[in-house]
Amino acid sequence: MPGPRPAAGIVRVAVDLGPRSYEVLIGRGLLAATGQEIARLMPNVRAAVVTDTTVAALHLAALAQSLAAAGIDHVVEAVPPGEGSKSLATLATVVDALLAARLERGDVVIAFGGGVVGDLAGFAAAVARRGMRVVQVPTTLLAAVDAAIGGKTGINTERGKNLVGAFHQPSLVIADSGVLDTLPRRTFAAGYAEVVKYGLIGNADFFAWLEANWRGVFGGGSERETAIAEAARAKARVVSEDEREEKGTRALLNLGHTFGHALEAATDFSDRLHHGEAVAIGMALAFAFSAGRGLCAPADAARVVAHLTAVGLPTRIADIPGPPPTLTRLMAAIAQDKKVARGALTFILARGIGRAFVARDVPPDEVAAFLEARLSE
Amino acid sequence: MPGPRPAAGIVRVAVDLGPRSYEVLIGRGLLAATGQEIARLMPNVRAAVVTDTTVAALHLAALAQSLAAAGIDHVVEAVPPGEGSKSLATLATVVDALLAARLERGDVVIAFGGGVVGDLAGFAAAVARRGMRVVQVPTTLLAAVDAAIGGKTGINTERGKNLVGAFHQPSLVIADSGVLDTLPRRTFAAGYAEVVKYGLIGNADFFAWLEANWRGVFGGGSERETAIAEAARAKARVVSEDEREEKGTRALLNLGHTFGHALEAATDFSDRLHHGEAVAIGMALAFAFSAGRGLCAPADAARVVAHLTAVGLPTRIADIPGPPPTLTRLMAAIAQDKKVARGALTFILARGIGRAFVARDVPPDEVAAFLEARLSE
Repeated sequence: MPGPRPAAGIVRVAVDLGPRSYEVLIGRGLLAATGQEIARLMPNVRAAVVTDTTVAALHLAALAQSLAAAGIDHVVEAVPPGEGSKSLATLATVVDALLAARLERGDVVIAFGGGVVGDLAGFAAAVARRGMRVVQVPTTLLAAVDAAIGGKTGINTERGKNLVGAFHQPSLVIADSGVLDTLPRRTFAAGYAEVVKYGLIGNADFFAWLEANWRGVFGGGSERETAIAEAARAKARVVSEDEREEKGTRALLNLGHTFGHALEAATDFSDRLHHGEAVAIGMALAFAFSAGRGLCAPADAARVVAHLTAVGLPTRIADIPGPPPTLTRLMAAIAQDKKVARGALTFILARGIGRAFVARDVPPDEVAAFLEARLSE
Repeated sequence: MPGPRPAAGIVRVAVDLGPRSYEVLIGRGLLAATGQEIARLMPNVRAAVVTDTTVAALHLAALAQSLAAAGIDHVVEAVPPGEGSKSLATLATVVDALLAARLERGDVVIAFGGGVVGDLAGFAAAVARRGMRVVQVPTTLLAAVDAAIGGKTGINTERGKNLVGAFHQPSLVIADSGVLDTLPRRTFAAGYAEVVKYGLIGNADFFAWLEANWRGVFGGGSERETAIAEAARAKARVVSEDEREEKGTRALLNLGHTFGHALEAATDFSDRLHHGEAVAIGMALAFAFSAGRGLCAPADAARVVAHLTAVGLPTRIADIPGPPPTLTRLMAAIAQDKKVARGALTFILARGIGRAFVARDVPPDEVAAFLEARLSE
């Protein structure tokens, strides 16, 4: 992988939300510019960096140096890595750290990590002193193209994931694409599934570009910034149109997620299947299901499978290591995930690559028959 | 006290907040109309009533009957009465009850109680499923004229009161003035201090009207609805102008609260001094301090003391039962309560009755000297 380059080419993507608008900055080496970017937006601010111990060991020194250089006084709260930190107990710890540092409503929380840290720190910022500002500094591809943009924050409870939280838009998102060099390949690939998703939802040209350029994205070439920026633009458009998931537009982002969540639940959210891998299988299933219903050409479904396979992502339920999930468990998870309106399920289906839509009339029996056939592949 | 009258004369006060606008309904016997008012606004909604065990024993049957009559399916979560329920542990219990009942984002939380229940249930609604609707049904005078209106929700932590929370506007506020008949007189009087506050801040005519009509307000005559409506209008105006306390307008509502909070802290938030009583003493002190600085006529300060005394509220630090707070403790609480900018304190002072303003230039020494003189009275 190439070493850090100066942050010469910063791409700025605007998230247009009226008084809550903000920018997503994307570039290699941006961590070094984080302090000055925050200071420019928030003069005289004090900060709390919320991170996890893995990210702290690898990258905290660079961030702290940048903050110090910009004269930003800060404290650090590092939580254990992993989904377990999206808990009420860890939230209380983080909020207490913000209060202990005597941060005021005008001060800022810097969420420095992947999706877990972004969701946790964003939620802490939403509720500490009834709302502090938050800057998202994602350190995974998944967070850079998805979790860090759009203001969804939250924690898990025993009753399910993300059931407690807030819509709390960041004031700024700073995605240093060079930081992603340190990600395990499997983690990077899982995040890449969400990049592919934006092409499949509404941008066939972007999908074709990814088919041709994915090696550069993985390898750390300038293609990586191009891909992140395009994904961020797509996410920004959807969020601008439907900030709080009230109009249905934002539901398109769930392409692959209903099947994916069911697979994650049926494998107990274990290391057997990362979220992005579940989304990859889910997207392949959504296209296969769409093709089976005559909605999209089988060739499109095959192209989805081919590209995901090329980058090393799973596309079949059989690709999940260990014992296969049961149909009963999958259907239970699907019924719980989506409100069943008059006996029909809501799914994101597709009329082709780049042509996803919300289908609110999917009979559960049809889904069960489809999955049963997939389970015996 | 008179018994329930039909809800013939409902007063409707609008809180104008653009897409987050809502109404405050005030009237005797309104509890019986709560179900139909909610059903009119939210067809087919399901509900969770969050209340405390004291309110539940007195008034839950009436509310439940009203909801049932309107066809609103609901669950009930009753927490222990008192400030102790504004805790993270109780919040977790309430949120879990909402999730256990499988309430969706479009469903509604009914906050049925005083300020504690309003703040707790409002915050639970703000964060469960990233935001459910909340209807505030205040059962104390304090909640009806203050806490239920304006969207401030939250809980306490070991580091202080209301340090964790959200701005989450209700969809509707329903204040049944008849429910207040069951309040202990001391509790009613403490709430009345906040009614007086609105007159002192910006409406000298309202203060004069209260001087003439307070017996009707306390006795449950139609003057009570008039007073609540006027207070609600005043609160609504301030909230409309400065929803999130960003412009300073909303700071005017803190008249009497800086001195008051210091007295509450110095008496350990005990039963020796209720919040409204602390505000009453605080308002008397703010006017005395203003008069001492030559800002307002001593006669105005005397009128404030006379009216508060007439209704049975304390106005002097010496009125607090038990050992008097120390000057050191009071000044420490004042310094902690308000950000000290360049060595000066921010106080709400007055140029006369109905003419409060934000003073950002108050020297701590002057406050200390003033309080020292009051402590030796």
